[in-house]
Amino acid sequence: MFAIAITLLIIEIHVPHPEVSTDKEWLITLANLIPNFAGFILSFIVVGAMWVAHHRVFGMLRRLDPTLVWPNLVLLMAVAFMPFSTALMSSHSAERVPELFYAFTLIVAGLLQIRLIRRALREPFLKPDVSAADIAMIRRRSLALPIMASIAFVLGFFWPGFSNLPLVLMPGVVVLFARWRRGKRPEPDAGAVGG
Amino acid sequence: MFAIAITLLIIEIHVPHPEVSTDKEWLITLANLIPNFAGFILSFIVVGAMWVAHHRVFGMLRRLDPTLVWPNLVLLMAVAFMPFSTALMSSHSAERVPELFYAFTLIVAGLLQIRLIRRALREPFLKPDVSAADIAMIRRRSLALPIMASIAFVLGFFWPGFSNLPLVLMPGVVVLFARWRRGKRPEPDAGAVGG
Amino acid sequence: MFAIAITLLIIEIHVPHPEVSTDKEWLITLANLIPNFAGFILSFIVVGAMWVAHHRVFGMLRRLDPTLVWPNLVLLMAVAFMPFSTALMSSHSAERVPELFYAFTLIVAGLLQIRLIRRALREPFLKPDVSAADIAMIRRRSLALPIMASIAFVLGFFWPGFSNLPLVLMPGVVVLFARWRRGKRPEPDAGAVGG
Amino acid sequence: MFAIAITLLIIEIHVPHPEVSTDKEWLITLANLIPNFAGFILSFIVVGAMWVAHHRVFGMLRRLDPTLVWPNLVLLMAVAFMPFSTALMSSHSAERVPELFYAFTLIVAGLLQIRLIRRALREPFLKPDVSAADIAMIRRRSLALPIMASIAFVLGFFWPGFSNLPLVLMPGVVVLFARWRRGKRPEPDAGAVGG
Repeated sequence: MFAIAITLLIIEIHVPHPEVSTDKEWLITLANLIPNFAGFILSFIVVGAMWVAHHRVFGMLRRLDPTLVWPNLVLLMAVAFMPFSTALMSSHSAERVPELFYAFTLIVAGLLQIRLIRRALREPFLKPDVSAADIAMIRRRSLALPIMASIAFVLGFFWPGFSNLPLVLMPGVVVLFARWRRGKRPEPDAGAVGG
Repeated sequence: MFAIAITLLIIEIHVPHPEVSTDKEWLITLANLIPNFAGFILSFIVVGAMWVAHHRVFGMLRRLDPTLVWPNLVLLMAVAFMPFSTALMSSHSAERVPELFYAFTLIVAGLLQIRLIRRALREPFLKPDVSAADIAMIRRRSLALPIMASIAFVLGFFWPGFSNLPLVLMPGVVVLFARWRRGKRPEPDAGAVGG
Repeated sequence: MFAIAITLLIIEIHVPHPEVSTDKEWLITLANLIPNFAGFILSFIVVGAMWVAHHRVFGMLRRLDPTLVWPNLVLLMAVAFMPFSTALMSSHSAERVPELFYAFTLIVAGLLQIRLIRRALREPFLKPDVSAADIAMIRRRSLALPIMASIAFVLGFFWPGFSNLPLVLMPGVVVLFARWRRGKRPEPDAGAVGG
Repeated sequence: MFAIAITLLIIEIHVPHPEVSTDKEWLITLANLIPNFAGFILSFIVVGAMWVAHHRVFGMLRRLDPTLVWPNLVLLMAVAFMPFSTALMSSHSAERVPELFYAFTLIVAGLLQIRLIRRALREPFLKPDVSAADIAMIRRRSLALPIMASIAFVLGFFWPGFSNLPLVLMPGVVVLFARWRRGKRPEPDAGAVGG
């Protein structure tokens, strides 16, 4: 599902047809697509980070309990929606409502992921080798997306066009959240997973 | 297959290009897309419920018997068709024929699923731990889609535009059908699966 | 791959926008799409039959030998091409060249499948429980597609518009080919697989 | 992911609608699509070769170490981008910038693959039966794409329209790179894999 949504991002970038076919005209044409390329890369990174988290959470579970099916499907719905909100933002960069709409869909996706993680990572669903420290780390990591997206949402009111760019830092922020409070107690296993 | 069809639903929602780029104009533009968003969510839920049922049925089988291959492929054909009927209904909400067409494709999909379930859930295909109560529950659940879609079809003659909205209740109705008659005899296992 | 190509077939059917929104106009509009629906169903059945055969062949192999990788990829290339040739034929039904083009791509796909099967179903790739009768049956079945597509190709010169319809019989013809010569010697296992 | 990107290549080829529907006009129309078909085949072969390499590398690993997740996702991003660069080149064959753009995306994809391979194929990630000769062969093979794409890039300055055609030789070149230096020392296992 994540793989399909992430690959569909590209089909929203349409092939341009410049009126004149000189090299210079082509370079201008491609430069005009930079917001589309940026949106593709941004959403690929954000959805990619969600994919990694999702994979990690389900790797901690013995099986998919029926009570998790719908929280999971609703999260997948938000992920499947991303190609639209990405295309909306990319085609209208620097316009306030599309930028806010994009950040809003990410806030929703982030909250749905937190909800799924809270429901999934508890007894009796867990594999026996999952430690409390692992769960705490996954929970801390899952805060990164809604917090970053909320910041982007607020920035979008004032600086549409640049407000969503900080989201490109997601993978690094996720690692920061994972390592937070590490200094206070030793968590060797969490370090191996979070690198 | 379900995952692909469910993700393709989004590419039928096209990015709007309002003539003026004010915030107000954008909000009106996005409000005009509400039928498309509603169609996306509705079909995601309905196809998602079919996906869950399909997964559950095949989890009860030892292997995919050759006699089940074509009943299964014909069901998948109806699922693969959903992005079209969803887009048709969403782009022409409140028009009678597209609404009826959508409900009709769901009736067909629901009947094909019942047919597959009746052929699949019987000896000698079943895993040894599948109880008669499990099978009865899955069969009752499978009635929810064609019944709900038939109601939507009838409603569509009188109130096109709202006729398909009851389908959003599908996951709840499925659980109701699963629990039906539970009071009469104890089925602890069915309760664990149907939650 | 087969699942993706088979699901992508639908996105080539575009949502119509009739000028008037009466029920009658809508019924005419949908009736005009019948060639597109027929093309979708036809290709779904043909690619579905190839998918079943592919699955069956690889189920007989111990592993995917490196010498089979490229014959397999070239077959997948022909399968991935089907959404285009289906859309070409469906949008221009009753025109000779699109009908011939469609039949031609199926002849090529059928020959590529025969080539893959001949290379794959031999020692030392086979699982130990695969009998010579199983292999002979799979080989006979694989003749159905290129023969049927060749007939459609010849018919297309004289009756474009109806020439490809016989392909809808593919699943039945495949079973006929599988059972051919069965009367002459007993093959109980082949019967169980080919039903 | 590779399978999805490779299948999406086809949806960038749009169904033509010639003004006159004679056989001759249709043949001209289809002949005009030859660059699009060539681009489809070319990218299918190149991405197919990357898929085979990716599959082979991950088959040598015990598990996907967290430190490999992002190098892998960034490579997948370049693969997911291919449908766009293919469509850009195919729709504007014989124009310099689109041809260079296509070759450039392949150089980037090739370098990202080398980076992933260098990070992945080392202790302690390897399965115990992976030999140093296997790793050396995979590394040599991975040089083929960036070298071929760089040649195409340089050719693109002088002969746009034909510059990317040599890439169709990729599978053969990969095998050449794999067998390079074989004469100097015996590598029976590598021969079995590289055939």
